Amino acid sequence: VGVHAVTQSEAGEVVYLNGQLVARSEARIDPEDRGFLFGDGIYEVLEVQAGLPLFAQAHYERLVRSAQAIQLSVPLDKDGFLRTIRELVAANGVEEGLVYLQVTRGVAPRSHAFPQGEVPPTVFAFARSQPPDPSLAQGVAAVVLPDQRWYRVDLKTVNLLPNVLASQEARRRGAYEAILVRDGVVTECSHSNVWMVRGGVVYTHPADTWILHGVTRAVTLQAARQAGIDVREEAFLEVDLWEAQELFLTSTTAGVVPIVRINGRPVGTGVPGPVTGQVSRAYRQAVEAELRRLREES
Amino acid sequence: VGVHAVTQSEAGEVVYLNGQLVARSEARIDPEDRGFLFGDGIYEVLEVQAGLPLFAQAHYERLVRSAQAIQLSVPLDKDGFLRTIRELVAANGVEEGLVYLQVTRGVAPRSHAFPQGEVPPTVFAFARSQPPDPSLAQGVAAVVLPDQRWYRVDLKTVNLLPNVLASQEARRRGAYEAILVRDGVVTECSHSNVWMVRGGVVYTHPADTWILHGVTRAVTLQAARQAGIDVREEAFLEVDLWEAQELFLTSTTAGVVPIVRINGRPVGTGVPGPVTGQVSRAYRQAVEAELRRLREES
Repeated sequence: VGVHAVTQSEAGEVVYLNGQLVARSEARIDPEDRGFLFGDGIYEVLEVQAGLPLFAQAHYERLVRSAQAIQLSVPLDKDGFLRTIRELVAANGVEEGLVYLQVTRGVAPRSHAFPQGEVPPTVFAFARSQPPDPSLAQGVAAVVLPDQRWYRVDLKTVNLLPNVLASQEARRRGAYEAILVRDGVVTECSHSNVWMVRGGVVYTHPADTWILHGVTRAVTLQAARQAGIDVREEAFLEVDLWEAQELFLTSTTAGVVPIVRINGRPVGTGVPGPVTGQVSRAYRQAVEAELRRLREES
Repeated sequence: VGVHAVTQSEAGEVVYLNGQLVARSEARIDPEDRGFLFGDGIYEVLEVQAGLPLFAQAHYERLVRSAQAIQLSVPLDKDGFLRTIRELVAANGVEEGLVYLQVTRGVAPRSHAFPQGEVPPTVFAFARSQPPDPSLAQGVAAVVLPDQRWYRVDLKTVNLLPNVLASQEARRRGAYEAILVRDGVVTECSHSNVWMVRGGVVYTHPADTWILHGVTRAVTLQAARQAGIDVREEAFLEVDLWEAQELFLTSTTAGVVPIVRINGRPVGTGVPGPVTGQVSRAYRQAVEAELRRLREES
């Protein structure tokens, strides 16, 4: 059970900063960028397979939704977003990995309310190789922690300190992820969505303001239903975790990952369960379909 | 009723970055600074009067407390902190204004959990002239908004997007501040603490995890009590706001500020009240005592 980490940036890496591709080693931002002073920004992470960024339209739509909710304008239209991502992937020769893109409210003398006058947003993006970790298929450990985040975690903002602290606490306790609980209700994990299997039915928290609306979550939901699996967007409780037959998580960079231990105790039989396997296959088929679509497009 | 803003940075400004004083125009940080990617950092704002930073020891102690709570080490001891602040104030010729100092978990390839190995924290600080706004003494307008922040707002972190959005909404509605309410309880404002007067008694939320423990709040509390004013650290409700005889706020950069309108309605008689005046005088005496102490020290 390894701990996920972005691979070290390589010499020669090229990143995107405010309209230009620049050497990673040259990329710098202003310390009064509102991303640095206030966490006043949003982001997306896309999975790259076979050199192709997956589900880019869904990621762009979520970026725009996050932006609108915090009254930030994204200075890239959909075509500009797609072009930027593809250029970054190509420039860095990424075959399997990820693209990260962040937009902040730009640089202005520090004051809480929005800058007045025309301040261009800052856009920073990178593409990195990160081969899939085959050990994840054997299942990972998780710990249960309180969900201490703000009330709009459906927005993918860079106000991520609670996620950072939960992720670190999971690692400290030898786990891959932290399952978060708010008022007794399981919401999601520190950087993934969580799902429970009970009586052959798959449950996951509805896509309201209390979870991040994962793109992989949405793809998995649709794919599993098309495969005839009974999936319900219904919240479940912390106490349900201890009775779960199976648990799994979904994330953009790791896909469907079985959770086989929770707080040191085995989940179900302690090995990846059959329903998780069905869901995982359905998700992989959706990814294959997306790859075929992208190849036909290009 | 004006809106608070840091004055525009001037040509020739000098800031502090990682151990050095550098020209503001030259100061740059890495885009993979965890402050920029995760809001993984903390900060302090100090008031400067007569060229002297006030209550610096209390600010340093709070910085260290915030740091410890997020397992971050501050690479400045108390003397280094005081020296840095004084150098910045002197280098920029600040007589009346503020010092801002931020510490983040440094630069590392993006991954939620803490960087492994030795990663030096980033320290950024600036000192700016900002003359006091005499119009504040006539009182300001406030609006009531939901407190949507995370569960550890006692830590002075740069995860400030909810504060930014509340502050912006207050400004949009012509107000100086937003009074925040969580589960019916008044907590504080978007960047200040709030106090209510009823029956001659002054109430403010206790210093638990639901408010920022303002240095000006603590100074005001002690000064008001020494002046014989009955001040109680007891939470009050949103409904109490509408019956309040007086309301006021405290912040490092503005001191004690009467709130004379709330959601467009007058507070009490609609002008600064007598208890607020007493508290304000007690606070100003504490500031005078601090200035005398600092002058004797130097």
